[in-house]
Amino acid sequence: MAHVSRKSLTDVSALAARYRAVREDSRALGAPLSDADATVQSMPDASPAKWHLAHTTWFFETMVLKPNLAGYEVFDDSYNYLFNSYYETIGERQPRPRRGMITRPALDEIFAYRAHVDAAIETLMERGPAPDVAELIELGCHHEQQHQELLLTDILHLFDQSPLKPAYRDPQPLGVAADPGEVRFIGFDGGIVEIGHEGDGFAFDCEGPRHRALLEPYRLADRLVTNGEYLAFVEDGGYRDPLLWLSAGWGTILGEGWTRPFYWHERDGEMWTMTLRGAQPLDLNAPVTHLSYFEADAFATWAGKRLPTEFEWENAAASLPVEGNFAGSGRLRPKPAAPGEGLRQMYGDVWEWTRSPFSPYPRFKPVEGAVGEYNGKFMCGQFVLRGGSCATPENHIRTTYRNFFPPDARWQFSGLRLAEDA
Amino acid sequence: MAHVSRKSLTDVSALAARYRAVREDSRALGAPLSDADATVQSMPDASPAKWHLAHTTWFFETMVLKPNLAGYEVFDDSYNYLFNSYYETIGERQPRPRRGMITRPALDEIFAYRAHVDAAIETLMERGPAPDVAELIELGCHHEQQHQELLLTDILHLFDQSPLKPAYRDPQPLGVAADPGEVRFIGFDGGIVEIGHEGDGFAFDCEGPRHRALLEPYRLADRLVTNGEYLAFVEDGGYRDPLLWLSAGWGTILGEGWTRPFYWHERDGEMWTMTLRGAQPLDLNAPVTHLSYFEADAFATWAGKRLPTEFEWENAAASLPVEGNFAGSGRLRPKPAAPGEGLRQMYGDVWEWTRSPFSPYPRFKPVEGAVGEYNGKFMCGQFVLRGGSCATPENHIRTTYRNFFPPDARWQFSGLRLAEDA
Amino acid sequence: MAHVSRKSLTDVSALAARYRAVREDSRALGAPLSDADATVQSMPDASPAKWHLAHTTWFFETMVLKPNLAGYEVFDDSYNYLFNSYYETIGERQPRPRRGMITRPALDEIFAYRAHVDAAIETLMERGPAPDVAELIELGCHHEQQHQELLLTDILHLFDQSPLKPAYRDPQPLGVAADPGEVRFIGFDGGIVEIGHEGDGFAFDCEGPRHRALLEPYRLADRLVTNGEYLAFVEDGGYRDPLLWLSAGWGTILGEGWTRPFYWHERDGEMWTMTLRGAQPLDLNAPVTHLSYFEADAFATWAGKRLPTEFEWENAAASLPVEGNFAGSGRLRPKPAAPGEGLRQMYGDVWEWTRSPFSPYPRFKPVEGAVGEYNGKFMCGQFVLRGGSCATPENHIRTTYRNFFPPDARWQFSGLRLAEDA
Amino acid sequence: MAHVSRKSLTDVSALAARYRAVREDSRALGAPLSDADATVQSMPDASPAKWHLAHTTWFFETMVLKPNLAGYEVFDDSYNYLFNSYYETIGERQPRPRRGMITRPALDEIFAYRAHVDAAIETLMERGPAPDVAELIELGCHHEQQHQELLLTDILHLFDQSPLKPAYRDPQPLGVAADPGEVRFIGFDGGIVEIGHEGDGFAFDCEGPRHRALLEPYRLADRLVTNGEYLAFVEDGGYRDPLLWLSAGWGTILGEGWTRPFYWHERDGEMWTMTLRGAQPLDLNAPVTHLSYFEADAFATWAGKRLPTEFEWENAAASLPVEGNFAGSGRLRPKPAAPGEGLRQMYGDVWEWTRSPFSPYPRFKPVEGAVGEYNGKFMCGQFVLRGGSCATPENHIRTTYRNFFPPDARWQFSGLRLAEDA
Repeated sequence: MAHVSRKSLTDVSALAARYRAVREDSRALGAPLSDADATVQSMPDASPAKWHLAHTTWFFETMVLKPNLAGYEVFDDSYNYLFNSYYETIGERQPRPRRGMITRPALDEIFAYRAHVDAAIETLMERGPAPDVAELIELGCHHEQQHQELLLTDILHLFDQSPLKPAYRDPQPLGVAADPGEVRFIGFDGGIVEIGHEGDGFAFDCEGPRHRALLEPYRLADRLVTNGEYLAFVEDGGYRDPLLWLSAGWGTILGEGWTRPFYWHERDGEMWTMTLRGAQPLDLNAPVTHLSYFEADAFATWAGKRLPTEFEWENAAASLPVEGNFAGSGRLRPKPAAPGEGLRQMYGDVWEWTRSPFSPYPRFKPVEGAVGEYNGKFMCGQFVLRGGSCATPENHIRTTYRNFFPPDARWQFSGLRLAEDA
Repeated sequence: MAHVSRKSLTDVSALAARYRAVREDSRALGAPLSDADATVQSMPDASPAKWHLAHTTWFFETMVLKPNLAGYEVFDDSYNYLFNSYYETIGERQPRPRRGMITRPALDEIFAYRAHVDAAIETLMERGPAPDVAELIELGCHHEQQHQELLLTDILHLFDQSPLKPAYRDPQPLGVAADPGEVRFIGFDGGIVEIGHEGDGFAFDCEGPRHRALLEPYRLADRLVTNGEYLAFVEDGGYRDPLLWLSAGWGTILGEGWTRPFYWHERDGEMWTMTLRGAQPLDLNAPVTHLSYFEADAFATWAGKRLPTEFEWENAAASLPVEGNFAGSGRLRPKPAAPGEGLRQMYGDVWEWTRSPFSPYPRFKPVEGAVGEYNGKFMCGQFVLRGGSCATPENHIRTTYRNFFPPDARWQFSGLRLAEDA
Repeated sequence: MAHVSRKSLTDVSALAARYRAVREDSRALGAPLSDADATVQSMPDASPAKWHLAHTTWFFETMVLKPNLAGYEVFDDSYNYLFNSYYETIGERQPRPRRGMITRPALDEIFAYRAHVDAAIETLMERGPAPDVAELIELGCHHEQQHQELLLTDILHLFDQSPLKPAYRDPQPLGVAADPGEVRFIGFDGGIVEIGHEGDGFAFDCEGPRHRALLEPYRLADRLVTNGEYLAFVEDGGYRDPLLWLSAGWGTILGEGWTRPFYWHERDGEMWTMTLRGAQPLDLNAPVTHLSYFEADAFATWAGKRLPTEFEWENAAASLPVEGNFAGSGRLRPKPAAPGEGLRQMYGDVWEWTRSPFSPYPRFKPVEGAVGEYNGKFMCGQFVLRGGSCATPENHIRTTYRNFFPPDARWQFSGLRLAEDA
Repeated sequence: MAHVSRKSLTDVSALAARYRAVREDSRALGAPLSDADATVQSMPDASPAKWHLAHTTWFFETMVLKPNLAGYEVFDDSYNYLFNSYYETIGERQPRPRRGMITRPALDEIFAYRAHVDAAIETLMERGPAPDVAELIELGCHHEQQHQELLLTDILHLFDQSPLKPAYRDPQPLGVAADPGEVRFIGFDGGIVEIGHEGDGFAFDCEGPRHRALLEPYRLADRLVTNGEYLAFVEDGGYRDPLLWLSAGWGTILGEGWTRPFYWHERDGEMWTMTLRGAQPLDLNAPVTHLSYFEADAFATWAGKRLPTEFEWENAAASLPVEGNFAGSGRLRPKPAAPGEGLRQMYGDVWEWTRSPFSPYPRFKPVEGAVGEYNGKFMCGQFVLRGGSCATPENHIRTTYRNFFPPDARWQFSGLRLAEDA
């Protein structure tokens, strides 16, 4: 995914602190991994952890250091081929489905690469970067945070492939959570509302321009759909009734043999699920996750509701603080909604599928140059998700943030909140 | 594709006349075909002509006659399996990719089936159908007209597979057309506009409810993009520059080896194209057709413009008469724009790709029952096309009509009109 | 498949009679087919009946008439592209998996093509063909007989695709057959034996050179394995025990979901099978057919026996008359073994899988030129079958005849006879 | 591959020495590898080095220790699932194409597993194993040596996937080799000869029973085909002439885009090849290697010769000492033939493709039980190779040794020697 900041941090020391914090977070995420864990690619859509750690570093080296730090010495010339993702303007690269063939350099060398680039960025910071360079550094931080989440979801996918179901972090008891209670629907008036990013803070290009949109009155569920509710759908034959499914969704579940969410499996008659803390019994009160768009949509149809549009979501979320169960807590799984009034779980826990295809906002234009390759080029065949997840860094998410995935993607922390017409 | 009428014709004799005309049109479309031509399926997305002729008849038999004509005798019990398309509520059916295995019944028997059902519909008409039955008959007429267009595009695809490139209709000289002149852009104010179907005439369910939409000011090209203009894009290396393409589009053209529109081929250094009148030299003044969404979008990017949204198109078309180069003319190919002021070629010639994914309008609900299976289930992974083509029956198209296809579909008469922000 | 005769018929009138008889047989085989039946290709390995009728004619036109009949006028230039099979030396051709796209010329035109070529061959015969031309005509007759059998097996495959299970010939009662009795094993001494073709009659190149082979003592079952015996294997869990199967066979049955022979299906708890006389209840006394090599081999392992080698079969068959249930009888299905002493059913009924890979005999050399393209090029990945089937023309088969198919092929009339070491 | 010894070593101390030596060889082969190198699976046909090191150990644990060493404690219960290869009788296992997903246990733990099993085998040796247990240990040694060769060829394949083309062992200069001189053909009389294993030494089950075979007189090239000779074939358009290829071979080279041997690639107009010592310029005097059967056969056709049968090869090799360029030398690449009279390079350097399909010898019966799963089950679709390679352990190869691979396999050290009829 790519991205463009509209405004930069003006305070270099704040930028330097942010850079260091983001980079340290990545290092910490890589720490529990062996060289082998960090090398294997478990499917074409996933990347090795080593690749994430190197690619984010390559971004700083290529976009920031090479053009802007006089005397910078490239760490290893071959890395430009190995760790470019999809920037066509920058040249040839290792084909995406073959990223897992790169057993060398080893993980240790990648950490050395990171240190080399970090030192050079510090030098650049000391010299005082021009505003457009500062902007690129901030962009690189957000880019790296995106990859932090992918590193976690890709590792979860890899570990699920093993019959040993290894835990990325120590298993820990779930604790006792209060029942989140019956879902309530909260009404919104609609009308002409403002949507999208504007102003000083960072945002990716696809979050703007800010513009007006017209909403009919609607209602949103006050919390996410739970595992218990989704299990009722499964047990009611939800995966065997074609009338509940989009045509493409029905084709997918038949073709792939899906009968329940990704990572669910039975052990001695009980339902379990794979998590970053190893295989665990299913927590019926926690939000359901690892759903495709097809499954989220079919559940909503079964429930007599629908998915919200991304504008309905943003309009409802705009007045709420960005708080929730994010990656920083270390929990790394969704948790049951705490009791409370009003909208709950709007941020964190699981990305919420919306019924909105990922399309350009009015007057959207991609940024020029390599960094403008480019959310725009993915504006086909994807649906928007909102709100962040338990694997998202807290200071990465925003009200206007638009995540997107194809409708059959299931390896992200993706769930749903119900909506209906008022 | 399915569909629901909101209001019915109240005048039974008008309905009977319409029924007869539509049925006769299908018969005439099948007349140039041999039994073999009408049987073969050239790809999973296409259906045999025989299947189109039988399926549309099965629709009347199943939806209209069996429940509503006392004493109706089914023509052949096995046809319910053979000629059901995708109505899950009605039962098992021949798998879509195996429709071409049905060598028996022969084309003659299908014509006999048509006559049997037509006679029964006449009986029903004489008895005076209830309003909801009359509605179903009208729906069946529109359904059959959809299949008339598909019959033509599927036959074109089949005949293109043969090295002999047979002509569906006699080849005829192109005649001399005036140069359509430089494209001009016409401005529209936008604002809050009304979109979608309402009122007495027939429409499919997905065309409503009529609702308000907010448009920014925009400009539309006064005519379609021509073969000559598209050839310039090809010759400029358009198919070799990844920066012009959506990511999924670039993957598609590489994977499929596309280097020009479907049906274009070279003969002795000159560009030709396959048509319903056999292989013909490319008419540079005629609208380009048989483009995928990917190609239409890449061309627009190359031209520094964009595709219109479906709302922009509908708002601009709303005040124009529904006139153009339709199937009834028998030309069966797009023709160059005639000189003139204002928007030209908005209807007929080629379906115009819009940048709008096929999504539900606010408060959209599919109709209950089998006939409500259902545009709604295709609302994923498809883009809307507007305006009809040279293979569309004239009285089938409307300002609010929403056609839709996946972004890699090329065998329809699909082209584009450019747009830009004002 | 290709082929070379070593010796020619010297008597032209006998050759002419043979030519006419073979050509008439093909015509009669095509007679029950509609244009659509004759056009559709049901899988890449099968060809349309029209193609068989045209290709065999093209062989005479291309190999015999064009080089040898002064003044011969080609029927249609485009046929050289359409009806060449795989002769690389002769030029480009319609890709094999796309043979079913050729809806034109129609079946009637193919019959006209046949008549045109037949008339020219008569002219050539009257003028007295040179010996090498007479040889080519005889080769063409054998070539056409091979395609007669394929036409039948391909039509059976096509008709099985239809839910209507149409009959190629009128269904007829099976009649009452005596139980073929318990299988007996007949011993053979082995030693040094002569294998392969030699002498005046026609044979394909791969049947020679005649050479010595060394056989250990062995025993052959006196009759073919029956449907009843094979059903016992199925019911004993034969398709669920990996230890009975070749590794590639186990992969195939899992991948394809095979659980019984091709064309077997259940109706109301009874086992039926598709035949050229429509779907019929399984005749437990008749030889099992439409087995892959994998299934024949697994059955033999289950039975504690093995398949014979092709040399064991030929050595045993050498002294027997070439008599059996061939295509000429019109039965077109295998029939139960008649009571009797000694080897029964060695010819006709079903081709017998041997454990011999299709390999060259010592000193084998393919013939030069187009007609030598060439059994030799298929000597990889195929197993030899012997003895002919109920779809083989009687005067086409010989003791030395080597048929061959890949081990997963099931649409031929292929079954087995058990063998064991003495 | 599986295997059965017919006779055991009677001297326990010799067996113990052999066991230790084989196990040490494996350890040394794994030493240059990182955890990541040893974990990744580069294609479904290859296995990770870690898997080879563990699976061979699992064989001793499962077949020898568990049933025969009282009190043996299994190292880790999960390994039975992880490291079973294909023994259906022993239970479920990690699917072969997913062996590369096993990032844990790490390589260090696999070495600990090896030490644990080695200690237990020592204990068993001290207690004096029964003769059948000693036989199993010897079988396990040969089994492990097979995997040593696969470990090398699989690592070569993996390292070739990386754009860095890492060297498994230090690159070293080729040295200067004398031109091997023009090939000479050496005649053999044929007649009735004895083929296959018999007597005291170890052999796999498929090498027997020893039996008589009848050979026509033939001639064998005195040395292997060289890179220089094969390059002449490439440059003569060998990969573009369908008449040189088996039908399946032509389909393969077109489908895969093969235009030269595996691992060959151009650098600045010069031909290089990937080796276990990294990418190296092609040595024109060394034997060509990494050929498929299809390529070996096409070369022989182009040269006007043929491949030998496995019996021709064995008959010629029977009187020669088993000497050559094996894995123990550490060279790990084929080397040019040294000057000399008579047959050269019959053992070592490259496996020699024969034209013999891998079929059972007369009276062959697989061994009972798990260890008899079983060369027999691969007797379909494979061709025999003879003589061993530069990656084969010297004391693993025999005159009667039958290696086998499918005709499109190229990642082994496989080349050819020409033959012809006398």
